[in-house]
Amino acid sequence: MGERIRLGHGSGGVLSRKLVEEAFLPFLGNPVLEALGDSGVFRLGERRLALTTDSFVVKPPFFPGGNIGKLSASGTINDLAVSGARPLFITGGFVLEEGLDIDDLTRIASSFAETIKEVEAAFVAGDTKVIEGSGGIIVNTAGLGEVLPQLNLSPERIEPEDRIIVTGTVGDHGFAVILARGELGLSADFPSDCAPLWGLLEPLYAELGPDIKFVRDPTRGGLATVLNEVCGPGLDFLINEQDVPVRPEVAAASELLGLDPLYSACEGRAVIFVSPDSADKALEILKGHPLGKGSAVIGEVTEGKGLVVGITETGGRRVLDMLAEDQYPRIC
Amino acid sequence: MGERIRLGHGSGGVLSRKLVEEAFLPFLGNPVLEALGDSGVFRLGERRLALTTDSFVVKPPFFPGGNIGKLSASGTINDLAVSGARPLFITGGFVLEEGLDIDDLTRIASSFAETIKEVEAAFVAGDTKVIEGSGGIIVNTAGLGEVLPQLNLSPERIEPEDRIIVTGTVGDHGFAVILARGELGLSADFPSDCAPLWGLLEPLYAELGPDIKFVRDPTRGGLATVLNEVCGPGLDFLINEQDVPVRPEVAAASELLGLDPLYSACEGRAVIFVSPDSADKALEILKGHPLGKGSAVIGEVTEGKGLVVGITETGGRRVLDMLAEDQYPRIC
Repeated sequence: MGERIRLGHGSGGVLSRKLVEEAFLPFLGNPVLEALGDSGVFRLGERRLALTTDSFVVKPPFFPGGNIGKLSASGTINDLAVSGARPLFITGGFVLEEGLDIDDLTRIASSFAETIKEVEAAFVAGDTKVIEGSGGIIVNTAGLGEVLPQLNLSPERIEPEDRIIVTGTVGDHGFAVILARGELGLSADFPSDCAPLWGLLEPLYAELGPDIKFVRDPTRGGLATVLNEVCGPGLDFLINEQDVPVRPEVAAASELLGLDPLYSACEGRAVIFVSPDSADKALEILKGHPLGKGSAVIGEVTEGKGLVVGITETGGRRVLDMLAEDQYPRIC
Repeated sequence: MGERIRLGHGSGGVLSRKLVEEAFLPFLGNPVLEALGDSGVFRLGERRLALTTDSFVVKPPFFPGGNIGKLSASGTINDLAVSGARPLFITGGFVLEEGLDIDDLTRIASSFAETIKEVEAAFVAGDTKVIEGSGGIIVNTAGLGEVLPQLNLSPERIEPEDRIIVTGTVGDHGFAVILARGELGLSADFPSDCAPLWGLLEPLYAELGPDIKFVRDPTRGGLATVLNEVCGPGLDFLINEQDVPVRPEVAAASELLGLDPLYSACEGRAVIFVSPDSADKALEILKGHPLGKGSAVIGEVTEGKGLVVGITETGGRRVLDMLAEDQYPRIC
């Protein structure tokens, strides 16, 4: 009997990555998968398609600003959107625990449907299963999209002087869910950022095309984890911490709880790497969309040693390393 | 607070269908989905693609003849295969319970990979999540395939005199899993039929094309449930019960347990509706493949009232109705 799974294996940090590398890649590895992008991208005839999947186990399933239906649809749409793919077809696998209120399920299905409609994708296949339990729900979604032909998104295209943009306040989703659990004696009066991002990103892709180098959505593990995953050898990412948008309520909760918003999940934000000459234009386009009003340039790429470096208000520097595991499971 | 989910909602019978119709279709309904086929089939340019999803919650995750890895890969491959689609790209969402042995996970991932390799599909996107629990695992798979151009599979093409073929013994998977639970004081010494069917069905499609009217895999609810789902108004399906292949061990267990093999899940069988003139040829092709050696014509289509009628050995007739709910949850 070997090592056993613990909650930290699901946090999106070092432990999650190790699990994937040890238990899955030896058998399932292939060039498409080993890119470890948000979607698998492949050719079918002349088209470049993207296929992605995600399971959602968020607890509680209803939280300020959304529910597991909106979250699971957004999550899959966003994995396609950050891959440069227009979301076309979505599937949903709903695993229901005994005792789940069918009215709640109906609200979840309705939010799921609304979110898909927002991006004009079609729901083409579904499945429901029931397991023992206490009224919970798990949703798995898969999405098929078509990559816009003018794009060439890849972490390998990131180079010194590229600017790093985030499309709004970070960490809202993670804090909203943790507080919604009611276990911490604090209550959230701000919503999760959970939202489908295709409408925000499409105009950016249309206008700036290959000047957009790479995009990712900072979900599990938050902004700092995603930056670490993307930062290749020979580069550093310098992040001006005072430029990273953080809601005052999140900043306050983060001080009380000792949690860093930079490591807290977003579900409606994108991190964008853009050529320096196009950074202003990118910011202007993003700010013109309701989901991008809080966009900001938070840093830039330099030559370096593969480190993500936070520059504090006083000019101090700290390495924003990858966390081994998150303390808060079941955020998404 | 309304009605609550119970295990019967997951059995694939009347209750499952009612849940889908009430909680999902009002929001998510569209022509592709309302076909309620095994895959959503749609056009992308000149190609007809099929996209499908399924969640697997089988308990225990290891059973004679397979495990949840082989099962989940086979299930999605089969949903594509019975839709006439060559399986091309597969995704996997793995929801792990705390306490799961990582060696077991590795065996599951390895079986999953082998099964996909068998049909030359590629694994292009994966996800893992961890939840509280007691060492269980849930797997969701989605699959993208391309429908062979010469095919036109639809339940609406079924007409009187068409023959009904099943590709092997029925109910093996259901009985193998129930017995593997060890709760009934019986032990299974026969394997589940769990297997990927593309290799079996492709030659049939290639040779007989549109003479194959419709194909489905009798999973949850078994052969009788699937026949009921397919049987349209104006038709009856007459099934010669003595021609339906049943393993002797399954027949024996079924008498002891009072369960009907016709309502027990298969995970490596197909039910095929074929023009009468092509039935012999179809049988010959199927029997030429290791997974189709036990194929048999089990009945035919007549004009009627939308009933599935079993003709017993003595010539008696019984209506094989849809069950309200299955007694045995978590079979797949």
